Amino acid sequence: MTDRGYLRHIRSCNPPINERFVPWFIENQVVGWLRPWLVEVLQEQVAVFVVSEDRVDLAPALDSFEARSSALAAVVEWLAARELINPPMGEAYPVTPAGRQAALCIMDRSAAAYFGVRAFGQHLNGFVRKADGMYIWLGRRARDRLIYPGRLDNMVAGGLPWDVSLEENLFKECAEEAGLSENVVRQAVPVGLVSYNRVAERGYRPDVLYCYDLELSPGFTPQNTDGEVESFTLLPVAEVARIVRETDEFKLNCNLVIIDFLLRHGYIEPQEDEYLELAIGLRRPLGAGLSVTG
Amino acid sequence: MTDRGYLRHIRSCNPPINERFVPWFIENQVVGWLRPWLVEVLQEQVAVFVVSEDRVDLAPALDSFEARSSALAAVVEWLAARELINPPMGEAYPVTPAGRQAALCIMDRSAAAYFGVRAFGQHLNGFVRKADGMYIWLGRRARDRLIYPGRLDNMVAGGLPWDVSLEENLFKECAEEAGLSENVVRQAVPVGLVSYNRVAERGYRPDVLYCYDLELSPGFTPQNTDGEVESFTLLPVAEVARIVRETDEFKLNCNLVIIDFLLRHGYIEPQEDEYLELAIGLRRPLGAGLSVTG
Repeated sequence: MTDRGYLRHIRSCNPPINERFVPWFIENQVVGWLRPWLVEVLQEQVAVFVVSEDRVDLAPALDSFEARSSALAAVVEWLAARELINPPMGEAYPVTPAGRQAALCIMDRSAAAYFGVRAFGQHLNGFVRKADGMYIWLGRRARDRLIYPGRLDNMVAGGLPWDVSLEENLFKECAEEAGLSENVVRQAVPVGLVSYNRVAERGYRPDVLYCYDLELSPGFTPQNTDGEVESFTLLPVAEVARIVRETDEFKLNCNLVIIDFLLRHGYIEPQEDEYLELAIGLRRPLGAGLSVTG
Repeated sequence: MTDRGYLRHIRSCNPPINERFVPWFIENQVVGWLRPWLVEVLQEQVAVFVVSEDRVDLAPALDSFEARSSALAAVVEWLAARELINPPMGEAYPVTPAGRQAALCIMDRSAAAYFGVRAFGQHLNGFVRKADGMYIWLGRRARDRLIYPGRLDNMVAGGLPWDVSLEENLFKECAEEAGLSENVVRQAVPVGLVSYNRVAERGYRPDVLYCYDLELSPGFTPQNTDGEVESFTLLPVAEVARIVRETDEFKLNCNLVIIDFLLRHGYIEPQEDEYLELAIGLRRPLGAGLSVTG
């Protein structure tokens, strides 16, 4: 296996699953995946979870969004008090069998990672058309960031909490990270998504990144306002593609957003050997690699 | 289940598989899927196929592209002579576990449909930017076509035989179907693909359509030269989207190419309920819904 090329990033984001995860159901739909140790602990929460050999179900008596959310919040506090999971972050994530609009309840972001709940984010490609071709704006992450300090990032990228609309969150992230006005951000085009299933330290992690393209005027320079970005740089598409192929300079999932950009704009062409695997690999079904039995 | 909306077309192209297909291997890689009746018949071809309970393998002694292709050609003649399959069409299709470049041999197009071999095509969206938004050129298929006579089609669409490059085939199809010159076609941008797995009369059918966008000047009008297109019409994107959502006017797989266009250009937005399912559904892994055992 080579350590160059585009495909290795897709494979890194979708590692083979070599351990057991137990599906978690609400109303007979899978909303998450749990490690066996957590399933065992949840057996004590008889009012909230129905635990059997092959699955965990939220108690059917919890039959409303509010009832489910408050029962889960109490379980999260209980787990955190026993130091089995990290303390709540105070940020709500949707718990959903489908898109975020279809959420059946919410759960604290920190706990959601242990419950294998779907996570949603927004990544924006800022680009400029010049006489000699397209250029892409990249951010360099601040050195004091917890995750991937000093690595390259998409111009704007952020997670999506439950209680904010896609538009509001994009406005907020674009203002904080790159100093973009709402008028400019309104020109951003939603262009699809990438999806993948990771196994992180805390658990199974199905991820969806909504992707946006934003054409910027050659005179514009992004300005970070929240300290998360050390600097911005504008590079020709071919150079960005080379960085993705030949280095690990990018935060891992940002590689997929760039590969998607390259595919959509014809910089990766269908006669290339990996084209089919790349195109299908960028849109992995959530829950891929796991199975529901019984 | 509603009979409107975008998702129904993706579901129609990816029906649930309610019958058994047996995987066909070359060099231990799946290249096709066969109905049990064909597996039984192939047991007589002991020099070409090794048939077991759960799988069919091409005989390992056939260890070159040429050897495999000529052995398969002979089997196809034999099957056609017994009237078990349609006669050969004289058009070669790649037999591949991955993209068409990775073909391990070729097989006649007509027979390929019985062997569940991957099929590849090219579909081109011709569009025009006007002051009031984007417009898309659509073709109306000739009334004498065998498949989907009189239905709407993408501006240019065609299957990809083995012995032609993507560029050559696109030039040829664009000239024949829409009167486009090579200079104009060179401006077409490859923008990804859609993939799906159908069950057709002849067998399992994994399909890949490479998609292209071509911006045309408002003064251009396509001219059909091969009699396959009755007429062309230029419609606002919103009207094309409505036709896809509310009617079955389009040839089935063309709906997916339009939905992909709508997603990439921001006409279907991520806050819509079906967004996640649409985006993932347009790129189904080939062989999805089937399983390899043993």
